[in-house]
Amino acid sequence: MHLPVGFRFAGVAGGIKTRVGARDVTLIVSDTPCVAAGVYTTNQIVAAPVVVSRGRTPSNTIRGVVVNSGNANACTGSRGYQDAVEMTKYAASAVDPAGNLTADQFVVMSTGIIGRFLPMDKIKAGISAAASELASSEQAFLNACDGILTTDIARKTAERKFRLGTRETHIVGMCKGAGMIGPKMATMLAIIITDAPLEPAQAQRLLQSAANKSFNCISVEGHMSTNDTLVMLASQPTDQTPALEGASEAEFAKQLLEMAIELAKKIPDDGEGATHLIEIRIQGANTDPDAEAVARSVALSNLVKTAITGGDPNWGRIVSAAGYAGVPIRPEHTALKINGIPLFDRGEPLAFDAATVSQSIKGRKLTEIDLQVGLGPGLATHWTTDLNTEYVRFNSEYST
Amino acid sequence: MHLPVGFRFAGVAGGIKTRVGARDVTLIVSDTPCVAAGVYTTNQIVAAPVVVSRGRTPSNTIRGVVVNSGNANACTGSRGYQDAVEMTKYAASAVDPAGNLTADQFVVMSTGIIGRFLPMDKIKAGISAAASELASSEQAFLNACDGILTTDIARKTAERKFRLGTRETHIVGMCKGAGMIGPKMATMLAIIITDAPLEPAQAQRLLQSAANKSFNCISVEGHMSTNDTLVMLASQPTDQTPALEGASEAEFAKQLLEMAIELAKKIPDDGEGATHLIEIRIQGANTDPDAEAVARSVALSNLVKTAITGGDPNWGRIVSAAGYAGVPIRPEHTALKINGIPLFDRGEPLAFDAATVSQSIKGRKLTEIDLQVGLGPGLATHWTTDLNTEYVRFNSEYST
Repeated sequence: MHLPVGFRFAGVAGGIKTRVGARDVTLIVSDTPCVAAGVYTTNQIVAAPVVVSRGRTPSNTIRGVVVNSGNANACTGSRGYQDAVEMTKYAASAVDPAGNLTADQFVVMSTGIIGRFLPMDKIKAGISAAASELASSEQAFLNACDGILTTDIARKTAERKFRLGTRETHIVGMCKGAGMIGPKMATMLAIIITDAPLEPAQAQRLLQSAANKSFNCISVEGHMSTNDTLVMLASQPTDQTPALEGASEAEFAKQLLEMAIELAKKIPDDGEGATHLIEIRIQGANTDPDAEAVARSVALSNLVKTAITGGDPNWGRIVSAAGYAGVPIRPEHTALKINGIPLFDRGEPLAFDAATVSQSIKGRKLTEIDLQVGLGPGLATHWTTDLNTEYVRFNSEYST
Repeated sequence: MHLPVGFRFAGVAGGIKTRVGARDVTLIVSDTPCVAAGVYTTNQIVAAPVVVSRGRTPSNTIRGVVVNSGNANACTGSRGYQDAVEMTKYAASAVDPAGNLTADQFVVMSTGIIGRFLPMDKIKAGISAAASELASSEQAFLNACDGILTTDIARKTAERKFRLGTRETHIVGMCKGAGMIGPKMATMLAIIITDAPLEPAQAQRLLQSAANKSFNCISVEGHMSTNDTLVMLASQPTDQTPALEGASEAEFAKQLLEMAIELAKKIPDDGEGATHLIEIRIQGANTDPDAEAVARSVALSNLVKTAITGGDPNWGRIVSAAGYAGVPIRPEHTALKINGIPLFDRGEPLAFDAATVSQSIKGRKLTEIDLQVGLGPGLATHWTTDLNTEYVRFNSEYST
């Protein structure tokens, strides 16, 4: 991997997760104050670390991110808030025992079960251990990636390397998956690091824009987390490397979006038992947000998901889900394809070979749904999983 | 049962369903023109029979209802519309071969798979057979109930008998269940018949009001059907029995609502494989509609449903689902009980015995969730099912 210079990483096993030896404390530190932007859950029930972090971004004084997995520190009241602040205070002193760093130079994230207080002794010991292992190596980066995972099968990273003018620029990202496979939680965390020179407000705008077309366009079961956090750390502009603008900014935005989509798609793609990644492409809505609403409605229908699981070309489930999305569609101009095969056009059913469609679904992991809703220029793409008995088993057989 | 006088019923096997001998054509006829009110799906993708019927209610000239199961006549374009009209035309002539009835005196409903044209030969033969069997007996009523079912395990009926002044009044209802158990569809149909004297606009208002607190407060997986239809047939006011008003109307409204709730709850209660009926009671929202939005958000969360399936007191899933309902709640005043046991209060987790809560869920069919969201007087109750592997199996193992 091509890591941006100026950052160090660590991921250690702090004993917060029940599985022995699993990494569950991650620390990412910038050698100098960096620009940080953040996008957070819009749930009103919001975890303590989200409350703390969103008050600290955007900023140009951030020195690092501290993360624990295994416990969400959500629904934990004032004690939870104090614990989240304490995590950042402890990280600041662990990273610089000389005392030159302050708590508010750290962003904090937690992920795991809701409603339990953090085991602060383990958290602090984990932060101390992570601080002592900080390194700029690829292995250190990968350890940091592992420390934010919960029930993910696979580590999730992505990177881009490209030129902006004469300057080589890097973006790397890590994220963790959501509820599908988790008996205990449904949380998405992601961290993006770049050496592109950005101003705080610019970083915030670019991050929000990328999130809108990537992390905000994926779902597993649509249960919005209390902890969702996406943070980007970026280099400070200097006299030698002023903040991006014009064509450079546009190129950075394009690369950031592509990487964010690559990273985000790994979440629905990695469900234990998920047999399909479903890509839902909507066109013909009045606006892009309308198209996104239609895509979400289709993506969140258990009847659509189970039809894909079973390789069943029961396309009425898809069309009817579009009809209750709460935004206008034109039924008599609606058309549907599954894996490129037309099934419904201008409000009329088409003759098709059910076995062929079924085989096209069963034969590969990706299922492509193209739905034209017949009104305007609005477009959207959404990625989700199918719904199978493994999901239900994982999420219901958690023994108390 | 105490059936209102003046109505005749039939339900016959017309060969539309694949299961041999299953009743799939129902006819309900009023001896004289009656008042009819209707509440229909709000899906923009709307089945042909809904388009036909909603143009004919409210009315005071209706003579009957014709229903088929096994095929939804949805997404069938102009041919589907012509078929739906033809069903009513054929019913009018079958019921009165002398030709005194017109097509627009009949309401039509269909339920079953989406996207296939009706087998009109079988439909017509079924209507003829049903017309020849019309009777006012309880058996005929029950046959009619069976003719509207699809994959329901149990026939669904309810009745009320009460006095309005000196007059004995009856309300009877039948309905069919939704998607949970159906590999092919997700449709709710219901017919209510009463001998209370109502004006058309009054019947429409009372029916809509009852539906808002009953049929609109249930869900299985939240996939809104293209065919949902609730129709009420009521006696015409006469000189001897003028339309209800004042206390009589209020009493009728109360009885109608109670019966509608009893009938509606049978739908989530009857899911093949559903091990729990979940009653979600919300209080403390700003308004009743806000409370309904919170209840729906909790009811539609697969993570909440699977937690109940597994007897898992993972209450963070419930509270977090309330937080993304899109209406205001006050997190720091939020409180939750499951089966009467307090788990969360004023934003802080309570100590509780997990095994006790788990046993209280596992030990009975009904799970009661009480959520206080800490703002105002808004109340709502919603009924739904859990989500288990049987649901997924039924809905994904439909072999094409």
